Amino acid sequence: MRPKIYLFGDSITEEAFNDGGWGASLASHYSRTADIVLRGYSGYNTRWAVKMLEKVFGAVDEEAQAPVAVTVFFGANDACLVDRYAAFQHVPLDEYKQNLRTIFSFLKKRWETAAIIFITPPPIDEAVRLLHPYMENPGGLPERTNEAAGAYAQACVDIARECGTPVVDIWTKMQEFTDWKKSCLSDGLHLTKGGNRIVFEKVLEKLKEVGVSLEKLPVDLPLFSEIDSKDPLKAFEK
Amino acid sequence: MRPKIYLFGDSITEEAFNDGGWGASLASHYSRTADIVLRGYSGYNTRWAVKMLEKVFGAVDEEAQAPVAVTVFFGANDACLVDRYAAFQHVPLDEYKQNLRTIFSFLKKRWETAAIIFITPPPIDEAVRLLHPYMENPGGLPERTNEAAGAYAQACVDIARECGTPVVDIWTKMQEFTDWKKSCLSDGLHLTKGGNRIVFEKVLEKLKEVGVSLEKLPVDLPLFSEIDSKDPLKAFEK
Repeated sequence: MRPKIYLFGDSITEEAFNDGGWGASLASHYSRTADIVLRGYSGYNTRWAVKMLEKVFGAVDEEAQAPVAVTVFFGANDACLVDRYAAFQHVPLDEYKQNLRTIFSFLKKRWETAAIIFITPPPIDEAVRLLHPYMENPGGLPERTNEAAGAYAQACVDIARECGTPVVDIWTKMQEFTDWKKSCLSDGLHLTKGGNRIVFEKVLEKLKEVGVSLEKLPVDLPLFSEIDSKDPLKAFEK
Repeated sequence: MRPKIYLFGDSITEEAFNDGGWGASLASHYSRTADIVLRGYSGYNTRWAVKMLEKVFGAVDEEAQAPVAVTVFFGANDACLVDRYAAFQHVPLDEYKQNLRTIFSFLKKRWETAAIIFITPPPIDEAVRLLHPYMENPGGLPERTNEAAGAYAQACVDIARECGTPVVDIWTKMQEFTDWKKSCLSDGLHLTKGGNRIVFEKVLEKLKEVGVSLEKLPVDLPLFSEIDSKDPLKAFEK
């Protein structure tokens, strides 16, 4: 049985298999070693995620192998401002932190050996968000700000440290590029191919750090390079 | 539990999550409804695949839900010519047919309800194959020909009809495009983004025909569009 890596999060996870997506890149990288299982829920915040944890991860199956890793990628919706049109997605910062703790404990209780990797929300381009309202926006103000996203990103980093679990701070990482608004974001919130590439590379780095690497995972069936052209069936006799 | 769709085949399946790959496109399409499980084995022919069937699909688990579909995409390696450098991958046409029958029966015996979708090998650009030998090629001739690939494609179509199961004939489909050598193939054998697009579209068409469609599959958790902004938690109470 191949080990599994779950990707759990909001739309930036749900879209992870779009063209150039970070999930597809992980599936390609681990094509002979691990199954990438998509559990992305567009629009969801941690409050809704916590309510649905049992449903997302199914009934406890004692026989089933624990996944080797789970990425937890929430916060972009929690960080919607409370006085703007997407307020119904907003989750207060303290509740967001508590919800991340709850998600972490749930996963660790179920799968003690699984590496839980937090990913912070991405930065926000407010001017571009104004061009992409997904509901009526009578106030004419962006529903998210980069400052708010940054506060949730910092909280995510803090909770990861508190839990002793790895974290990918893409809010900070992306802003190291001077052209981040254009190169990383497609609509001021979701990711371009370039943004996806950063998430892929940073998540892969963390996966390797916790031993989820091509060097350490067993390969599913002999590789073509290991098959002797003079006696190919020998490779399958083990 | 989300239903699964297995992708079983050779390198053209193993690479299905590369940039623009047909597997990634399926995963994106079914992002809230089905798990796409990659079982691609680069270089493999049906002889090796048959030997490894039990290992590929694991021990029988009576509790486990049957996958809704399995794609079976072999033949490109079986069709290697017997008198060229890749002869060790060659499988005679009659044995290829018998192996497809064996794979079909194995899957149907295990999962009666699963739709088994055959995919023929792609066409071959012989001139370009000569530029990409993967072993020493003292003879200076291509290891595959389009004619041979066509014979295996026809055999695949024939066995699918005999088994009463759907088949995607990409050998024929791709050659409907006058520029197929450039638009569909990257190295005379493997697929460009355009080639991947064709496989994705044709496989999706067959999946829809057998009822594996967004219209018929249950959605995993409420969609964002179904969540009432005035009372979001209501959607999660069911």
